[in-house]
Amino acid sequence: MKQNPKENMGTADKERTTVLAIDIGGTKVAAGIVDAKGRILGETRGPMMARGSAQEGLRSVLNAVDGLRKEFPGARPRCIGVGVAGWVDPARGVLIGATNIPCWKNFPLAAALRKRYGIPALLSNDANAAALAEAVWGAGKGHGSFLHVTLGTGVGTGIIVNGKVLTGKSGAAGEGGHVTINFRGPLCDCGKRGCIEAYSSGTGIARRARERLKEEPGRKSRMRELAGGKIAQVTSKIVSEAARGGDRLAEEILEEAADHLGIWLGTMVDLIEPEMFVFGGGMGHLMMKYRGRMRRQMEKWAITPQRKKVSVVEARFGAGSELAGAAALCFANVKAKQK
Amino acid sequence: MKQNPKENMGTADKERTTVLAIDIGGTKVAAGIVDAKGRILGETRGPMMARGSAQEGLRSVLNAVDGLRKEFPGARPRCIGVGVAGWVDPARGVLIGATNIPCWKNFPLAAALRKRYGIPALLSNDANAAALAEAVWGAGKGHGSFLHVTLGTGVGTGIIVNGKVLTGKSGAAGEGGHVTINFRGPLCDCGKRGCIEAYSSGTGIARRARERLKEEPGRKSRMRELAGGKIAQVTSKIVSEAARGGDRLAEEILEEAADHLGIWLGTMVDLIEPEMFVFGGGMGHLMMKYRGRMRRQMEKWAITPQRKKVSVVEARFGAGSELAGAAALCFANVKAKQK
Repeated sequence: MKQNPKENMGTADKERTTVLAIDIGGTKVAAGIVDAKGRILGETRGPMMARGSAQEGLRSVLNAVDGLRKEFPGARPRCIGVGVAGWVDPARGVLIGATNIPCWKNFPLAAALRKRYGIPALLSNDANAAALAEAVWGAGKGHGSFLHVTLGTGVGTGIIVNGKVLTGKSGAAGEGGHVTINFRGPLCDCGKRGCIEAYSSGTGIARRARERLKEEPGRKSRMRELAGGKIAQVTSKIVSEAARGGDRLAEEILEEAADHLGIWLGTMVDLIEPEMFVFGGGMGHLMMKYRGRMRRQMEKWAITPQRKKVSVVEARFGAGSELAGAAALCFANVKAKQK
Repeated sequence: MKQNPKENMGTADKERTTVLAIDIGGTKVAAGIVDAKGRILGETRGPMMARGSAQEGLRSVLNAVDGLRKEFPGARPRCIGVGVAGWVDPARGVLIGATNIPCWKNFPLAAALRKRYGIPALLSNDANAAALAEAVWGAGKGHGSFLHVTLGTGVGTGIIVNGKVLTGKSGAAGEGGHVTINFRGPLCDCGKRGCIEAYSSGTGIARRARERLKEEPGRKSRMRELAGGKIAQVTSKIVSEAARGGDRLAEEILEEAADHLGIWLGTMVDLIEPEMFVFGGGMGHLMMKYRGRMRRQMEKWAITPQRKKVSVVEARFGAGSELAGAAALCFANVKAKQK
């Protein structure tokens, strides 16, 4: 990530330093005070007015931050890190666009925050930021290259190469969730077909469970009860819960999701040969149960002789990964400067 | 590519400098004297004994080089660059393995050449080296990131990020030809299904032409005549020739290959967002006729708002790309040092 070196935090008192981390989604803004070890010292949440004017959107963010500052008046954050679910140009600190945040198009969010609070502000796609948190404090620490997968409602990815986020020409790289593994496959929310997100995200898993329940009406499954008898109400949470209880159909659905993930991982091995894959997000932690299965598929779907050396590990950060990611933007930057 | 800085060529007389470029395949070795502008000043070819002992393999290479030195006794190459169709650890100069060169497993080829000729030797996968030639002298010059596609019998790719080859942890990255776009698709020579190589390489195109000719026995096509009436004899060259002459079925087959390439390019845009795609290789130059079609598909199969800014261009290097690539290993290194 290019930026003005003058804007970096001082490194002398790095250990005492805190930063202000902001995570912006389509409906909410989270803001937190995070220390140099990635610990969230305080946090607030507020609504995000994503469908009004650009200024209304900004005001949602400022309100959340002001609320946090009121709650933690002693905090002296030295830098602001912002993660947002959308396309970002990290070099310029500009939000290019975000499906769920239509109020902003080519919006200079970093500059607006810098102006308001008088400290440096850095902006990143949230999935790339989450990868950076793992690089700085988590499972990827000490590893030069890995692919971080946030498996939740969707599939977000961030690629770390030689300790840095692979941003692409304008910051759009890292959308690994929309790599198609079958261009004739199921329709993805993005409009393409057969993206790994369409197969193995929470959304994809729930869709597949509903399909299977309809296809096999005679088959007993606890998923039906958990959904109150309404197949349309089956969610990935219900699939997970049923699988944990030993429901065979639910297990089959998760096994299938793991197999598809393995095909995708194999492709990633051949293309970018990371040292490892780090799985986070609600479904990501759950899928660790199927790690062996994913690895076997990955080894089938990669051709390099090195494929057996690529590991699949669990992310350190769970639910707090977004704020930690936003904070990592500030601390990763300091580390880069120290070298 | 990491390596000992002492091994770099002097940069003072860069313009007068020549290097020794070696390209090793399953059946032949090519060796050439290449200058700092990427011009091949002299070249020899010899057989490659790829199925004997490791020493016999090495002797094939030394014979080709010695032949070249005899033909061009005045040449004083300062560095040896070697491209080889296989998995290479460029940092250590070791050939890990190559399907068509079974004589070598974990063979320290760079060290053997350095010892014999007393000059630095650098080793790379041939597709990565071809990408580097475009970065140093060709279509990619002045562009930080691009994906180079060698479309020939197979599909070789090299990924350039910030002016350097993306090698992956041990040098195995860049096998973009074996990214599957349909895991239920046609069988690839690598054993996987639906790799872009299975669809759009010369091999894939010929296979598809034979299929279509069998499926549509009543349909007139010049391909039948060109193959002497024997469908089994249809090659990609025949498809190309027939298409050039306006044969509709042959055109359809190439259009389909272009569409599949577009799906794959879209995926690459979402994953790594290169500035551009550079197409080389015999089929690659031919497919430039379908550039508009590829771009349209690419834009459909990428979701980033930046997708329209990614260009698709023709490589500078044609048949000589392997030797130029091997030479580029030496010159790219000098350039990196100059910065």
